[in-house]
Amino acid sequence: MKMKKFLNDPNNLTTELLEGYTLAYSKQVKLAGSHIVVRSVPKSKDKVAVLTLGGSGHEPALSGFVGEGMLDASVVGDIFAAPGAPRVLEALRLFKDYKGIVLVILNHAGDVMNGNMAFNMAVKEGINVKKVLTAEDIAPGIDAPLEDRRGLGGCIPLIKVAGAAAEAGKSLDEVVAAAEKFGASMATLAVTMKTATHPQSGQYISELPDDQMEIGMGQHGEGGGTGPQKIVTADETAETMVTRLKAAVKLQKGDKAVLIINGSGATTLMEQFIVYRKAHQVLTAAGITLIDGRCEEILTVQEAAGFQMFLAKLDSETQGYYEAPSNAPYWVTK
Amino acid sequence: MKMKKFLNDPNNLTTELLEGYTLAYSKQVKLAGSHIVVRSVPKSKDKVAVLTLGGSGHEPALSGFVGEGMLDASVVGDIFAAPGAPRVLEALRLFKDYKGIVLVILNHAGDVMNGNMAFNMAVKEGINVKKVLTAEDIAPGIDAPLEDRRGLGGCIPLIKVAGAAAEAGKSLDEVVAAAEKFGASMATLAVTMKTATHPQSGQYISELPDDQMEIGMGQHGEGGGTGPQKIVTADETAETMVTRLKAAVKLQKGDKAVLIINGSGATTLMEQFIVYRKAHQVLTAAGITLIDGRCEEILTVQEAAGFQMFLAKLDSETQGYYEAPSNAPYWVTK
Repeated sequence: MKMKKFLNDPNNLTTELLEGYTLAYSKQVKLAGSHIVVRSVPKSKDKVAVLTLGGSGHEPALSGFVGEGMLDASVVGDIFAAPGAPRVLEALRLFKDYKGIVLVILNHAGDVMNGNMAFNMAVKEGINVKKVLTAEDIAPGIDAPLEDRRGLGGCIPLIKVAGAAAEAGKSLDEVVAAAEKFGASMATLAVTMKTATHPQSGQYISELPDDQMEIGMGQHGEGGGTGPQKIVTADETAETMVTRLKAAVKLQKGDKAVLIINGSGATTLMEQFIVYRKAHQVLTAAGITLIDGRCEEILTVQEAAGFQMFLAKLDSETQGYYEAPSNAPYWVTK
Repeated sequence: MKMKKFLNDPNNLTTELLEGYTLAYSKQVKLAGSHIVVRSVPKSKDKVAVLTLGGSGHEPALSGFVGEGMLDASVVGDIFAAPGAPRVLEALRLFKDYKGIVLVILNHAGDVMNGNMAFNMAVKEGINVKKVLTAEDIAPGIDAPLEDRRGLGGCIPLIKVAGAAAEAGKSLDEVVAAAEKFGASMATLAVTMKTATHPQSGQYISELPDDQMEIGMGQHGEGGGTGPQKIVTADETAETMVTRLKAAVKLQKGDKAVLIINGSGATTLMEQFIVYRKAHQVLTAAGITLIDGRCEEILTVQEAAGFQMFLAKLDSETQGYYEAPSNAPYWVTK
């Protein structure tokens, strides 16, 4: 099937989408240099800045979360590709006079490589920056070490926590500690029914037979999942996934948690609600209290059909940060 | 191609999706009776209530906009089907002691029939209710009479305006007048590249050849558009559509307007940003001032690929209502 997308020259894709985004949400965001999205109204320099980097093609992630209470800047790469280290360094330099910088890096090879290179150069320049690696995909196993886990949509709530701690005037070490505590208590599992077309090549990323789905597939069609399986009901899918997530996060009766269903692109909110319903039932039956959840697209993979289920255990500190206000265009404060 | 959706028994679809939605957003919404979504914290009875009705399958519309500053209740039908008049009447009765009720009806045969029946029964019972018909699809022509225009995604910003006027304590007549003024100054045009599968039958609603798109197709594949045409660039599509919308709304140099790109389901935010960019350029080149726009899914048609472009002229009253706060789960206050 031919790709059916509204595009101009594929080579200008990232530039055009960032222009459109910053025009639509000009109260909150603007471009600073090439492919760096910053707040329209900068944060005060006596606070810690929170930055991240990542490829485009996953909108609203990551630039959709630049705004008060969340990111100060997002460094954007081309479609599904990390931005180069020089651009990340350029962004870090913009915030060198701040109280400090947290650089959030998703655990994908390109992001880690370019993020680390820029980090090392910045440190040499005397910039006060610390890294936080976000890696919560439990497809490789619920006890897999951090470095084996991919960074999925959980980066967004983690950025929410880091951003709120920074906004509250916390020190660089305190912001890093809050983000890492939240990161250690979260887990995500993805399920894919249909993969996406790459918007530049027009090619399908990978293929799944018509009657099959796969739990744990990487967001660009990478392996690591439980392999293709027959499509089962929404309830069976939700129960399988939430049971693994609950074990990974080590939730006990009486714990507080947050549950997010993140649509991959073509999966409707209707389906996300049905999946949320079952996962909510399983968790509340186990005596877990869910603070209000959300069903929405926070990190997509073009028009892929599927979703990521995200679960995190909260304590009073992380809950406060999670629920703090934000004016980022794609984070709805409840 | 087989339908690839996360579902249980198709007969319980609407019930399950509403359960999931109200569980996820319990701070804002709850179920009142069968398939009626109301606010968790009711509005004070000395204000006007705003209600609407419509089929499910278009999430987040319409129930996603129940909340402070927007709807008091949404009466939900089965997939793509209006709710029956008795259920609409049941909802109207819930608000009979309020200062008055505005019933917003989208111009689709089933909604109009059932909405009118319930309205007439409510009036007979002495309930103080007025109707507002929302109908802004300009596919039949920019000067087509109201009754020939379909009600598309413009119902959501119209509800925003009505809801804010009601929240501000305005009288029933004043709320109706604000909604109708906004309704008369708005226009929507849709474009479809790929239609959706009906989630109960698994059938495609209609078909478009691989290299074709259609401007003006109805949201369930109904005709009325300019017919299938070769896919053109995002910029050409945006320019064609915004030019017609601008003429319909009669925007002049110096006017203020709001522009919304509403994704139909599978069309990415990436594409919506690119389309927004071009439409913004055309409007600002004509001397029109856009207050911040939005690109998001407010009224979808399952996994259809396409979008609705919405344009409205604002005056100071409607701008104030449009920008007023809301805590509805799917309306982000900027």
